[in-house]
Amino acid sequence: MKVRPLQDRVLVKRVESETRSAGGIIIPDTAKEKPLEGIVIAVGLGKRLDDGSRVAPEVKEGDRVLFGKYAGTEIKVDGVDHMILKESDILGILD
Amino acid sequence: MKVRPLQDRVLVKRVESETRSAGGIIIPDTAKEKPLEGIVIAVGLGKRLDDGSRVAPEVKEGDRVLFGKYAGTEIKVDGVDHMILKESDILGILD
Amino acid sequence: MKVRPLQDRVLVKRVESETRSAGGIIIPDTAKEKPLEGIVIAVGLGKRLDDGSRVAPEVKEGDRVLFGKYAGTEIKVDGVDHMILKESDILGILD
Amino acid sequence: MKVRPLQDRVLVKRVESETRSAGGIIIPDTAKEKPLEGIVIAVGLGKRLDDGSRVAPEVKEGDRVLFGKYAGTEIKVDGVDHMILKESDILGILD
Amino acid sequence: MKVRPLQDRVLVKRVESETRSAGGIIIPDTAKEKPLEGIVIAVGLGKRLDDGSRVAPEVKEGDRVLFGKYAGTEIKVDGVDHMILKESDILGILD
Amino acid sequence: MKVRPLQDRVLVKRVESETRSAGGIIIPDTAKEKPLEGIVIAVGLGKRLDDGSRVAPEVKEGDRVLFGKYAGTEIKVDGVDHMILKESDILGILD
Amino acid sequence: MKVRPLQDRVLVKRVESETRSAGGIIIPDTAKEKPLEGIVIAVGLGKRLDDGSRVAPEVKEGDRVLFGKYAGTEIKVDGVDHMILKESDILGILD
Repeated sequence: MKVRPLQDRVLVKRVESETRSAGGIIIPDTAKEKPLEGIVIAVGLGKRLDDGSRVAPEVKEGDRVLFGKYAGTEIKVDGVDHMILKESDILGILD
Repeated sequence: MKVRPLQDRVLVKRVESETRSAGGIIIPDTAKEKPLEGIVIAVGLGKRLDDGSRVAPEVKEGDRVLFGKYAGTEIKVDGVDHMILKESDILGILD
Repeated sequence: MKVRPLQDRVLVKRVESETRSAGGIIIPDTAKEKPLEGIVIAVGLGKRLDDGSRVAPEVKEGDRVLFGKYAGTEIKVDGVDHMILKESDILGILD
Repeated sequence: MKVRPLQDRVLVKRVESETRSAGGIIIPDTAKEKPLEGIVIAVGLGKRLDDGSRVAPEVKEGDRVLFGKYAGTEIKVDGVDHMILKESDILGILD
Repeated sequence: MKVRPLQDRVLVKRVESETRSAGGIIIPDTAKEKPLEGIVIAVGLGKRLDDGSRVAPEVKEGDRVLFGKYAGTEIKVDGVDHMILKESDILGILD
Repeated sequence: MKVRPLQDRVLVKRVESETRSAGGIIIPDTAKEKPLEGIVIAVGLGKRLDDGSRVAPEVKEGDRVLFGKYAGTEIKVDGVDHMILKESDILGILD
Repeated sequence: MKVRPLQDRVLVKRVESETRSAGGIIIPDTAKEKPLEGIVIAVGLGKRLDDGSRVAPEVKEGDRVLFGKYAGTEIKVDGVDHMILKESDILGILD
């Protein structure tokens, strides 16, 4: 089963950053909002403008991305945690 | 009796995702907002712009869609649960 | 006595949906916002744009419409319950 | 003494609708916002646009108008209750 | 010492309307927001638009104006109560 | 050490108006928001527009300015109280 | 591991201003919001406009910047405190 995001939305598979190797991005333990990580699974066609054209998305399938803790909507796809986010909720790409 | 949604609104028949087969989309049990599912029954003519033209809707009759738990307005049509949503409240289409 | 709504406003006569026949639209009894029903009695000239033109209204006199419970302003015209609504508060038309 | 409203504002003399004859508009006694009535005494030149032109007002001196209970600012002119309203706070005209 | 207001701001000298003669504008004693009075002392060059031009102010030095009770910022100039207001906070001009 | 403000921001050195001579601007003692005074030390290049051009600032180095009590961000430069403000937070210039 | 900020976002390495030499910028101890300091590590491509072009960022790698205490999102990169900020959250550059 596949989910096709609408417009400027992106489907992201959550990656638990606790299990990652030392020296990588580690979520800090302070009171501020902390980013979460995920892999982009599907990208919408882009935000549709009033003249019918679309703004090309900046992320693509397979990108590892950071996003805010309170952004988007959780869903499970085939039993696995995913998020549907707006592209503007994505903070950056991990290279 | 039929309901014809205005502008960029969409009439959706609620589908209870609890009754679906294993391996499909399952609503998780955490505290975050969770999407609901439905079938698109009727689509408005699209958002009317100031010059009189309209933005073509991205969903169509028969699409199975995800939408936020707190989006839209509930109505019963012929005794069955439906929702009137704005298209922008629809998160994605299930293929 | 007549009320002429300004701009994109619409005068609607409330219709109590409790008295309607089985199989029609019935307001559900959950906690969500529920739509009310009414008959369009008078329609404004349409929203006036900065260049002086107007956006043509999408509803017309006699349409049976659904609108949100908390939308608009109640008035009595000749002792009968009416509402003055913005057209954008109208969810759909019942055919 | 005269008050000249600026831009898209309108000076309205309050009319107590309790004293009106049967069969007319009567303010209902429910919890919703209820409209008040008044006579337009003076109209501003209209909202000034960035290019220096103005949007012509839709109401004119002498119109009997409905407006929301919480709209505008009360003033007394020569001891009589008036309101200064934005034209967009006016719901409709009584014919 | 002089204060030159920036952009669409206006410097107004407060006038206590309690001391005015009978038959004039009197501030009512209800719970609604009530307008205050003042004399325009200095007017900014007008709101600067993105193309560098300015919107000409609608009030001028010497105008007697009404403004909302909670609008603007109080200052004393040479020991006398003044206000710095945005022109859009001015409700009307007293002729 | 120097601070160069970005875009439409302005660096202002706080001036304590309590120490000023009689007859000048004195901050009143009522409950309303009161303006503070300062000297403009550095001015950003101006708000950058989408086409790459900039809106020229209206204040310049050396201007004595009034600004709202709750505007901007405090910093110390070489041990002296300064503020970083948006130009739109500046109420007027003292001549 | 590198983080590439999206659009008009900037990756900044936090610098503790307590450890800086006397005479420099010192965070004051009052109740107002106080700026923090950092070094720009990576800059997004700039805010993407609807026509596909981008607004060039005003800060560059290596700039020492001030930003508000409550702006942005904290992350650790290789164990070191960083922030992802929007460029508009940056108050000024230290020369």
